[in-house]
Parts: sequence; C-alpha cells; structure tokens
Amino acid sequence: MSQHAVFLISAADRKGLLAETTMFFYQRSFNILHCRQYTDAMENSYFMRIKIDLEGMTMTRRVLEEEFAELGKKMDFTFKVYYSDAVSRVAIMVSKTSHCLYDLLVRREDGFLPCEVPLIISNHPDLEAVADRFHIPYYCCPIKDKASKAEQEAQVIELCDKHHIDLVVMARYMQVLSDDFIAHFKGNIINIHHAFLPAFQGGNPYNRAWQRGVKMIGATAHYATADLDEGPIIEQDVERVSHEHSPEDLKEIGRDIERRVLTRAVKAHLEHRVITAGLRTIVFDG
Amino acid sequence: MSQHAVFLISAADRKGLLAETTMFFYQRSFNILHCRQYTDAMENSYFMRIKIDLEGMTMTRRVLEEEFAELGKKMDFTFKVYYSDAVSRVAIMVSKTSHCLYDLLVRREDGFLPCEVPLIISNHPDLEAVADRFHIPYYCCPIKDKASKAEQEAQVIELCDKHHIDLVVMARYMQVLSDDFIAHFKGNIINIHHAFLPAFQGGNPYNRAWQRGVKMIGATAHYATADLDEGPIIEQDVERVSHEHSPEDLKEIGRDIERRVLTRAVKAHLEHRVITAGLRTIVFDG
Amino acid sequence: MSQHAVFLISAADRKGLLAETTMFFYQRSFNILHCRQYTDAMENSYFMRIKIDLEGMTMTRRVLEEEFAELGKKMDFTFKVYYSDAVSRVAIMVSKTSHCLYDLLVRREDGFLPCEVPLIISNHPDLEAVADRFHIPYYCCPIKDKASKAEQEAQVIELCDKHHIDLVVMARYMQVLSDDFIAHFKGNIINIHHAFLPAFQGGNPYNRAWQRGVKMIGATAHYATADLDEGPIIEQDVERVSHEHSPEDLKEIGRDIERRVLTRAVKAHLEHRVITAGLRTIVFDG
Amino acid sequence: MSQHAVFLISAADRKGLLAETTMFFYQRSFNILHCRQYTDAMENSYFMRIKIDLEGMTMTRRVLEEEFAELGKKMDFTFKVYYSDAVSRVAIMVSKTSHCLYDLLVRREDGFLPCEVPLIISNHPDLEAVADRFHIPYYCCPIKDKASKAEQEAQVIELCDKHHIDLVVMARYMQVLSDDFIAHFKGNIINIHHAFLPAFQGGNPYNRAWQRGVKMIGATAHYATADLDEGPIIEQDVERVSHEHSPEDLKEIGRDIERRVLTRAVKAHLEHRVITAGLRTIVFDG
Repeated sequence: MSQHAVFLISAADRKGLLAETTMFFYQRSFNILHCRQYTDAMENSYFMRIKIDLEGMTMTRRVLEEEFAELGKKMDFTFKVYYSDAVSRVAIMVSKTSHCLYDLLVRREDGFLPCEVPLIISNHPDLEAVADRFHIPYYCCPIKDKASKAEQEAQVIELCDKHHIDLVVMARYMQVLSDDFIAHFKGNIINIHHAFLPAFQGGNPYNRAWQRGVKMIGATAHYATADLDEGPIIEQDVERVSHEHSPEDLKEIGRDIERRVLTRAVKAHLEHRVITAGLRTIVFDG
Repeated sequence: MSQHAVFLISAADRKGLLAETTMFFYQRSFNILHCRQYTDAMENSYFMRIKIDLEGMTMTRRVLEEEFAELGKKMDFTFKVYYSDAVSRVAIMVSKTSHCLYDLLVRREDGFLPCEVPLIISNHPDLEAVADRFHIPYYCCPIKDKASKAEQEAQVIELCDKHHIDLVVMARYMQVLSDDFIAHFKGNIINIHHAFLPAFQGGNPYNRAWQRGVKMIGATAHYATADLDEGPIIEQDVERVSHEHSPEDLKEIGRDIERRVLTRAVKAHLEHRVITAGLRTIVFDG
Repeated sequence: MSQHAVFLISAADRKGLLAETTMFFYQRSFNILHCRQYTDAMENSYFMRIKIDLEGMTMTRRVLEEEFAELGKKMDFTFKVYYSDAVSRVAIMVSKTSHCLYDLLVRREDGFLPCEVPLIISNHPDLEAVADRFHIPYYCCPIKDKASKAEQEAQVIELCDKHHIDLVVMARYMQVLSDDFIAHFKGNIINIHHAFLPAFQGGNPYNRAWQRGVKMIGATAHYATADLDEGPIIEQDVERVSHEHSPEDLKEIGRDIERRVLTRAVKAHLEHRVITAGLRTIVFDG
Repeated sequence: MSQHAVFLISAADRKGLLAETTMFFYQRSFNILHCRQYTDAMENSYFMRIKIDLEGMTMTRRVLEEEFAELGKKMDFTFKVYYSDAVSRVAIMVSKTSHCLYDLLVRREDGFLPCEVPLIISNHPDLEAVADRFHIPYYCCPIKDKASKAEQEAQVIELCDKHHIDLVVMARYMQVLSDDFIAHFKGNIINIHHAFLPAFQGGNPYNRAWQRGVKMIGATAHYATADLDEGPIIEQDVERVSHEHSPEDLKEIGRDIERRVLTRAVKAHLEHRVITAGLRTIVFDG
C-alpha cells in the first residue's frame, strides 16, 4: 500500500467543516481514503478523521500542514496529523502475568498491530523469558519500597525517552502511577482494568464479581489518568458466566477478555482512530 | 406432555446427596427427566434440581412429599416441590413504559412463559389500553403523596392476596418498595434494573453511562430486596454501543435489553430453575 | 425535531465526490446532520448517505432536487431522496405465527419504527385477533390451490397499491413469491429467513441445525429476490445453543432471534440507511 | 488439587442409570466432584460425565474399573475413564499461519490447556522459529507431489506413535487427510474450519462470505472425519462484520475467532467433556 496520512480534527460544531476540509484535499488532488465525522450535539462539538492517500503528492508535508493549519485558523479547528511511515514506538509495561504481553507481541508479529516495541519494562523479573523469545530488551525496574517509587518512575521515564516512546501500554502492570508520570506522557498511556468499569473499580474485581453473583464479567481498556480506573474508556467487552464459575474460573475467563480488549484498544490508538473529549472517547471505525 | 414435578434442594455439602436422592426416585419407579447439581466449594453448600416424570405415579403427592421429607431429615437438606399442573399466578406492576409489559404478555401468549396473569397493577393510568388488548384487569393504584404510599402498598398487597399471586414482576414499576412489602412476598418479587449492575445503581443510568463514555450498556433482572438494586441477580445482558449513541439512543437500545433480560429471568423463575443463596443465585439451565 | 432529508448516492469511485456533494449543501446553507461514505475498492464503487436539516430552507424541494440532479450529472452519480415528513407505509404479511408481527406492531407503537401500517395481509385467518388489538385492517387472502396462487398474488398487489404501500414486510409469511410479485415492488420486500444464511436454506432449518449439531443458531433478514433465500442480506444475528436444546427449543430460541433481526432490518430500511449493490447491502449506521 | 478421575458413559436411556452409577461411587466412599447427564429424547440415548475425587482411594484403579465395568454390563452402558495424572499428549499440525499455534502454546503455558506438546509437525518449514521459542521439536514433513502424500502421512503417523500422541490438533494444517490417517487416530483429531459451518464449506470461505454479503463471520472446530468439513462440531463462534470490511479484514477478524474457537474445543476435549454421538457432540460444561 502506498503512504497515507491521517488527520484528526476537533472543533466546535459549525456549518461547512466537512465541506471545507474535504474541498481542501480535493483541490490539492488528494484522494480521501476514509472519512468519519461525529457531532456531539450535547456538547456542540465536532470531530473528524480523514485518511488521505499520499501517492503522487507534489508538495512537501510541511507545506501541506501549514496550509491545513491556515484552514484550521479560518474554521476554528485544531488538528493532529500522522503519517503511515512514522511507525509508533510502544513501551509495554508488565508485572507478573503474561497473557496480555503475549497477545500484544504475537499480534504485532502477524501485522495486526502496526508498531515497534523497542523495550519491555517491569517491576519484576518474571517475564524476562517471554521478552527473550521475541528478542526484545527487558528492563527490570523494581520498586523496593514506597520511598523509592518516584525514583523508579524516573528510571522508567528515562528509558522511554531514550527509546523515543510514543505510547506506553500497561499490560497488567500492577502499580498505581503518579500524576507526574501520567502528565509526562500526555495521554499516551493505555491501561487494562480487569473489570467492566465503572463496576468493580479497585482491586480483586473477580472476587467481588463472584460475591455479587454477576452473570457477565468484563474488562476495560482506558487511557490512564490521575484518577485511577477513571480514565476515558477506549474498549470494553464481556463474557457470560454462571454460578458454576469459581473466582478462579472468572479470573481465567477474564484473562481472555483482558487480552482481546487491550489489543483492540491499542490497535485503535495506533491507527489514529481515537480522539479524547473529556471523559469520553470518540473511536472511529477502521 | 405428562405431568412432572420439580424438586429444589439446598444443603451443606456432604457425600451421598446425589446418590441418595436419585436412588429415592428410582426405587419408587420415577423417571428422572432432568437433574442438575451445584457444589459451592467456597461456602461448602450444595444445590440440586430434580425434575421427575409423574406418569404412572402410584402414590399420592402427599405421601411422596412426606417420604422425601424423611430423606431430607436423614441427609440434612431442605427442599421445595413444584407440580407442573399448578401454574404460577403472576402480578405485573408497571408505571408508564410498556415495552417490558408487552414482552411478558406476548411471550406468555405464545407459550414461552408458563403462567397466568390475573391482573396488572400500576401507579398510573397510562397502560390500561395495553391491558385491555390482552383482556387482563388493570388496577390503577396511584400514590398521591409520600404519606399515602403505605396505604397504596396495602392496597396492592390486598389485590395480590385476593388473586393468589405467586410472583410479582416489576416491569419498570418506578417506585421504591418498602421492606414490609418485600417481606410480604418472601423473595417472590423480580425487578428489572435498567443498567448493568452493580454499575450505575440508582436513577438515570443511561445518562450516566453516556457521560462515563462506556462502550457497552446492559440491564439486570434481580430479586427485589430491602436494599434497592442490591438483590440477587438472576439475569444480565449487554449490547455494544459507541460514542455515536446519544443518551436517547442508549435508552432505546436499553429498552430492548431490559425486556429480554426480564422475560428470561421470569421464565427461569417460573420453571423453578432458580435457587437463591445469600446475594447469589443458582440458575440451572432448562 | 425539525424536518430533514436523506440523500442516498451511488457512483463509480472518483475524486471529489465527498467534497463536491458536501460543498453543494454548504453553499445552500444546509446543515449536514450525518454523513457516511463507503468505497468498495473491489468493485470501484462509491456510496454515500447524507442527512441534512431542512430548517430555514429557502428553496422548494423541487428546485433542490433539480440542482442536486445537475451535480449528479456532472459527477456521474445517481441518487434518491427521502423526506422525514413522508412517512413510509408498510404492509405486513403473515401466515400463522405471531412473534414477528407482534414485535413490529409493538415497536412501531413505541416509536422505534417510523412508519404507518395500513394493513396486514395473510393467507390464513389465524392472526386476525392480533391485528384487531392494534386496530389494523386484516385481509385474509387464502391460496386454495396451486392454480389460484397467481390470483391471490394479484389480490395482494391490488390491496398494496390501493393503500400506497412503500414496503412489504414478510413477517413469517410462508409462501414462495412469484417473480412478477417481487418485480412489482422493485426491491421493497423484506423477508425473514429462520436460519443463519447461507447455511440451512430452504425448509425446516431448526431440525436440520439440530441434526448437524451446530453450536449457534441464527436468523437472517434479506430483501426478497426471485431466488428464494438468496436476496441481499440486511441483518443477521445468532445465539449460542448446546446439545441440550431439542429441535423444539431451537425453534423457540430462534423465534426471539427472528423478531429482533427482522425489526432491526425494517428499521434500517425505514431510516433510509440501506443501499443495495448486487448481492451485498451497504447498511450505514444511524 | 488432589487426583481425580472422569468417567464418560454412553447408553440407551433407561431408568436408574443416574441412581445406580452415583450409588456405585457413594458406596465406595468416593466424593462426586461434578456430574452431568444428558438424555437425547430423539434418539433415546443417555450420556453422563462423572468426575470423582480419588483422595483416600483404598482400591486399585484396576479394581475400580473392573467393578464399574460390571455395573456397565448390568445397566448396559459403555464407558471410558481418564485420570488426572495421565496428562494428554498433543501433536500440533500446522502449515504456514501461526495464530492458532501461538494461542495453543501460550495458553498451554499459562495452565489453560492441561496437556503436553511433545512435537509440532508441518508440511512447510515456515513456523520452525515459533516452535523454537517454546523449545518444542519441529518436524517438517513436506508433500512433494500427490504421489508422495501417502508416504508423508505414514511419516506423520510414525512420529505421533513414537511420541505416544493422544490427540492431533490441526491448527490451520492446510491438507486434506486420508481416510486411513483419520482412522488411525480413532476420532482424536480436531480441526479448525475458518468458516461458520455448514456455510462456506471448502476453500476461501472469507472471500465467499464477502461476496455473499454476510453480516457475521465465524469459525468452527470439529472432529476430523473422512468427509471433510462434515465432522461433529465441538465449538463455534462468530463476530459481527459490516459492508466496510474487505475480504482481507474478514480474514484478520476470522483469525481471532479461529484461535479462540480452536483453543476452547481443545480444552473441552482435554478435560474429557466431549462425547460424540453420530454427527453431534455432547459438550458438558466444566
């Protein structure tokens, strides 16, 4: 496939946004491969994702962006642009369980997740063998005590910066992140919560789900924010369970939901299909 | 189909419960049509549902029950028995929305729900026309003010007692029930909550789900208890939604989930497939 | 809500289709409420649905359509336009089972299906009582023998024409339709097949599904074509089943799938969200 | 957990089967951990799975089996018994795609699949690197031409016999198996078909699904029989798709369905929860 670019646009709703932006690309002879819009009538806001073919492009990317920024000024929108040849660089953070890590690595390998994974970071040594199998450097940054947590986070940040990381995926990394850490990555941290949020926030969700006798369990992938388990939800899924399932069974079933929910959320992010608006996400389809 | 009986058995777990009960029926020449057991290893408790064919039965029901009670004493279990010719009598309570009411009435008519519905009770006059269509008496028992609520509940109880009601189904009846009311029906009240409990307890769940940006919404049918929205869950279901759905859309999608969840829960109860154990339900399949 | 119009557009794919059409409405001061596009890269064809707000419209509908037709000539597209004040008129055809009929009537009543139902037509008298409940005229047009089938179809066509029917919904009407009958309604006949097409075409699908031991059963709503069970699929759904379900159980579960699949397909059609392209349908979301 | 045994019992239906078998274990002081029965009223046949705790067992396994065989003679049933300390040995066969292989290996590693995998066999060299990662011997047995196919199958059989293989899992092994090969393994071959059988039997199912415009795609795990794609179905699942998905997209979505369907089917087999009866399977839950 030839190169393409994705523009993500946010604005207050007004007439002409769709016409003006599509005309912009048409006049410059770009083929629009995909275009999705969403008007949030409750908040009077407008979101758009435009994917254009860069084949036969006769201007520089800089000029394209400058001219589009001018249109943005005129129509009062903000935008981000992503090019298909700039592959996202992802750091995966884990603790002791491997199911989400495996899924991310295997599906990256078969082309489902368009990204590079230059490193895996953990607070435990347990999963180094998994990283080895995929020939990815594994950094163990343990947290000895509460006092050393800030130090450890600084270490993780340094590693990520050194490797030019675009996205941090917490693939069952069992540590609360500090506000500073989250702020450093500006919304580019995806977490998997092992419950169907907003139910069962906090720890041990499967035990609590069992005690409450729910008939379905789920998992939630969301952007990490300062409020733990309160970030904008990207993807959720559930499976039917019954009284027969023990808390252990729920955990096992849950693992399967977690990994597919996290992988789908990461894919949506990597394909630049997600726009965050307050506590909600707009997730455009492919 | 010939007559049959369903025995629901609860006990502390011990060896021989299955062997002794099935041998009991075998020795009396009953054919066991269906048998399900569940051992709750966490609580060390045991639950069983046995459905037997009554064809060619040579003893009276009274004798059968007395003899089974003796076995119960020996094996230390409690039980209830239901006969297929004793059709359950259901009172449906509604307020202003008809979707759950319609579903119950239509599916009763086509044989899906084995019950009689001698009356429909509401705190509003709105749905009388629906009741009329199915030739079911409609009693409007309005609640004029807070003070008259106890009086209204007494009126509802009187109506139900007069009609020998076995089960009260709150098909979007939008009133909190008093503890006395709930106690009167001894666990035989099923309510539909228009959210995927335990998330979004209380009012306006669809608005709150929209604001939280969830990617799936659901509904929950549960037995009514003194703690509103906290009763044992019988059935739940969900549907996938997206950012595109307004709170109004969620409400519309939710209606469809509510009615099928409520109808399935009522069916499970009417077929004597539900045993309550604390906050959990054992729901045996058909 | 104010009046709106929906334009459905089909074309060979070419640059500028989206820009030109949205600019057309922007220049005439229309607000675009919703816009969806789909490019079929396999067939090099393009489909679009544009929903515009008619509030404050200063031209006549005739002029709007003429000017849009000119754009169509220039850009080489064909289109249809539907106005929200022209409510679709639906004839429901049934035989002996009521579940789909009930669902259509109940959901029309609660506003889910934007249409009028001026008449119900059947080849049997069985469901007249259902029609009566909703105060809809019921026409029984029996087929006495093979020879009289053409005559009966002529009778049905006459009834539909007299009532200015836009859409015929076969809600478990158990008769094969002639090519002439289908041609008369030009693609505006929706049928529900009680199996997950293309598996189990033809009769008795639930028995055959049971014999084949499938673990899920489904239903399919499609446009009726001369080739029975081969028309373009609008909507499908499934439910999980197990070895425990008898053919009778499958039929009962199937009924629930059939009615929701049919109702969703009818809704998509009534909201002008479906474009047919050969054997495939483009079904835009809401 | 202590050792346990699973008995799978098949019989013509008759009174007393459940009572006699459970009494058998009770009298010998075994605790029944799980018991499931299924009566096929259409075929008048009866199936049972009993899982017993072997803790404190005072007789030899041989004696237990002999005594149970005597009961089998009396009650006219056949049975198989499996002990938890006899871990199944699985050969995985693959061609060029790795997604099912990875899923089986990863989920075996995390304890979801109770088995050993002594070898992986392929007709292509492509996936050797995957096998290496999990330190499992990889045997490449290519098929040079039609004439050498029998020879290759003999080679595969020899490998499996040498490694005492209990189950062969065809994890996207793209070769039709001969009747002799299938007969050799006596029903212990599980295959994944990349379509929702019985629709789209044969090759290229995703392309054909696209052309047919289906709204859901699926996958089917089944026992291999002489009739390709016609063996008893163990597990199926589907996902919703739309007109937007290209055949390539369907393939990608399909991969995810295939791997979870195959893994679930293998798990059911390994836990001795499957009984085959003609073209149908009885799959007891856990």
